[in-house]
Amino acid sequence: MLQREKIYAHIDRSYETHLGKVQELIRQPSISAENRGVRECAELIKRHLQDLGCKDSKLVETSGFPVVYGNYDAGADKTIVVYMMYDTQPVDDPGWSVPALEGKVVDQPPFGKCIMARGAINTKGELQAFLNACESIQATGQEIPVNLIFVAEGEEELGSRHLPQFIKKYTGELSKADAVFFPYADQDQKGKVTMTLGVKGIVYFELQLDGENWGYGPTKFDIHGSNKAWVDSPAWRMIQALCTMTSKDGNKVLINEFYDNVEPPASEDLELLDKLEKTFDETTKKDMMKVERFIEDSHGRDALLKYLYSPTLNINGIWGGYTGPGTKTALPHKITAKVDVRLVPNMKVEEVLPKIRRHLDKHGFKEVKIVELEEGYGWAKTSIREPAAQAILKTHREFGHEPEIWPHIAGSAPFCMFNREPLNLPFVIGGLGHGGRAHAPNEYIVVEEGGPTGGLATLEKSYVAILVNLAGI
Amino acid sequence: MLQREKIYAHIDRSYETHLGKVQELIRQPSISAENRGVRECAELIKRHLQDLGCKDSKLVETSGFPVVYGNYDAGADKTIVVYMMYDTQPVDDPGWSVPALEGKVVDQPPFGKCIMARGAINTKGELQAFLNACESIQATGQEIPVNLIFVAEGEEELGSRHLPQFIKKYTGELSKADAVFFPYADQDQKGKVTMTLGVKGIVYFELQLDGENWGYGPTKFDIHGSNKAWVDSPAWRMIQALCTMTSKDGNKVLINEFYDNVEPPASEDLELLDKLEKTFDETTKKDMMKVERFIEDSHGRDALLKYLYSPTLNINGIWGGYTGPGTKTALPHKITAKVDVRLVPNMKVEEVLPKIRRHLDKHGFKEVKIVELEEGYGWAKTSIREPAAQAILKTHREFGHEPEIWPHIAGSAPFCMFNREPLNLPFVIGGLGHGGRAHAPNEYIVVEEGGPTGGLATLEKSYVAILVNLAGI
Repeated sequence: MLQREKIYAHIDRSYETHLGKVQELIRQPSISAENRGVRECAELIKRHLQDLGCKDSKLVETSGFPVVYGNYDAGADKTIVVYMMYDTQPVDDPGWSVPALEGKVVDQPPFGKCIMARGAINTKGELQAFLNACESIQATGQEIPVNLIFVAEGEEELGSRHLPQFIKKYTGELSKADAVFFPYADQDQKGKVTMTLGVKGIVYFELQLDGENWGYGPTKFDIHGSNKAWVDSPAWRMIQALCTMTSKDGNKVLINEFYDNVEPPASEDLELLDKLEKTFDETTKKDMMKVERFIEDSHGRDALLKYLYSPTLNINGIWGGYTGPGTKTALPHKITAKVDVRLVPNMKVEEVLPKIRRHLDKHGFKEVKIVELEEGYGWAKTSIREPAAQAILKTHREFGHEPEIWPHIAGSAPFCMFNREPLNLPFVIGGLGHGGRAHAPNEYIVVEEGGPTGGLATLEKSYVAILVNLAGI
Repeated sequence: MLQREKIYAHIDRSYETHLGKVQELIRQPSISAENRGVRECAELIKRHLQDLGCKDSKLVETSGFPVVYGNYDAGADKTIVVYMMYDTQPVDDPGWSVPALEGKVVDQPPFGKCIMARGAINTKGELQAFLNACESIQATGQEIPVNLIFVAEGEEELGSRHLPQFIKKYTGELSKADAVFFPYADQDQKGKVTMTLGVKGIVYFELQLDGENWGYGPTKFDIHGSNKAWVDSPAWRMIQALCTMTSKDGNKVLINEFYDNVEPPASEDLELLDKLEKTFDETTKKDMMKVERFIEDSHGRDALLKYLYSPTLNINGIWGGYTGPGTKTALPHKITAKVDVRLVPNMKVEEVLPKIRRHLDKHGFKEVKIVELEEGYGWAKTSIREPAAQAILKTHREFGHEPEIWPHIAGSAPFCMFNREPLNLPFVIGGLGHGGRAHAPNEYIVVEEGGPTGGLATLEKSYVAILVNLAGI
């Protein structure tokens, strides 16, 4: 039986050292979209895994950035795959009030001290905090209570394109594990804990209409706008193609069979919703997004049902022709829309693009090209009844929190790579701490205790407790 | 009676000097969109006008860039307003094979030597050639055969926004003139001469849909794309609004009363078309634009009728949300389309935006904002029967060319500021020379003789002849 108090005391004593380690990791850039420092960051993490005593710690090459792999044999009964990501978003967005890669500690009321930097919450802060937690167990002369298989990928921000290559190579070893754990920080800005049991799937693609493919309109470059009088317009044609896909309010997808495989919420989900709707803070959610109303002015359970159980067809961006200042005239030769479909149970990745193709063809828009930008991935859910999920829940309760449990979120993550064939592992996420502004300027993670949320020490302690509770599953 | 041969000989002798003057003008940047060198260029032209002997040569201030004004009193019966523009497009487009502002002379088969530089053909080359022509008349001890009022504007590339301010101030003087002449170079790459008698009008505006104005969707910034499930999408809504405006092929405008004031071609236009369709080189036109077919596969007279007599609703550009590489997910808070309407006789500028507003409102899209980017201007036409037009025609014939006459083109220019109230002056364009790639990299004007088109000397001689013929109107 692990003596947790000793470990917690060590964590408290080591605050400055542990903070420094988080800062060190942040200062090593790892911007996958720009290939900036990614491999160096992988090497740094590999050294940390070696220091921890992982045998066979190494970079496993893929067609993209390497996966950092490490195998820690604690001689325990249970084995946990620790999924982590070491890449971050770029830092070129304007609005940073500190240099984005220095790991500066900034006082942010009401939270107290925070690290404000790219990767602070998404997710280098948690990654290093988890390593600090493991090291703290060892520092007290005790053993980590589970065996760990570390899988740190460097392409999460690129859609985890090459993670399947790693999983394929290591299927034999990974499938022997008992669960997958993703160290995260689950508190919102008021300290409320949210537990997330799953994600929607996603298929992301471009719809392109260009004159060359169409045979009408300018085929090679934008021409003078006055030629619209006798030359067809790929822009108008694209508008006409796109508008067949949704209702006039943009909310109902009119693609044939689009909703065919959508299942009503499972009974377990309905139970979770009964509780969730009581604590769901609609106002804060809308305020954070600067949204005045949800679709059809829905509230409470209705809004949650929409959020969680609607598949979506979303335009992420659209562009073509002259988009600068003033009044340059142009007849654009090409229009592109970045579109994604989010999948809910029981939709399949492979059904999406063929349905869109058939829709476009049926409406006479054979010339609209569908360009798949990356392999899509499915929705993923872990039952709250899974022992691994119960271990996370137990941990939150041990720390005095009754979490708000979401059967899944509307966002997507490649968790299905772990909890579907061939691995079939329960996937859980957890940790007690808070951060914000992922993918935005002034990203932060709270490090000081005493505010409405846990700081770095609480985060590390919660990871220790999660490991203990996972050992008991 | 002017002794033209003496003047032509002087022009031939002065080739190097005249070329140098064109280069000097080109080397003085005058990029109005960037406020780069514009005023310096105006000062340079003012000095040239002073050297020519203009009295009262000066910069006339407007709310934008100044108009260079000069009044040359030849003691003649006729007075011609010489409309010129001294601003150019920017030079930041990639693809230049020479520095864009050095006025380099480059050998370009089959034309021979050309100046390759921004402004070479649009229209610093012609501007300086016209001044060279005037100077050459004087150099032979003869007098320019008409009085000249120079009006050189520095905002043509910005839509001539403030030219009306100048015209208002000088209405009294300008309205006493007999015609307006715009020195240009009318030969195509094969040497064929095109005479253009008018332009369409234009109204240029943006259609914007943003969540803040709408009250639905994200109001301040793009939010995570997964929120489409419960948050309205300005992008889809904009698509739905735009698609109501055209037929499925994008070619028929479905805005109520849009075509109401469109007149059938005038009888004079039909006469011109009878001739035009015989020489109209459809293949070269399509090849230059890299267009494989005209709308509805029209050819010859049908294509010309479309080009000249259709008003258009064109999307010049559209953008919103994430438009970079890869798969960032976003629910955009704002979509913008740059749209223009081209006006044919007898449409009025002031009828356009109210019709579009009524259309959007009628279809339930009150939230789509119309932002007028600049004051529109009307179509403008000069009859071929006008003595000033006959003077241009006569000049071309004197040089051995039977021009292809276009009753107007589909492009727009603010000529209506001269040929409508209060000035009501015939507006003519002309000159024998060739250039290309206006608004594009490697813009050029031919300067050497002996190729399929006239060079700099021919251009200057044709201006001399035009002045002589305008004196006879």
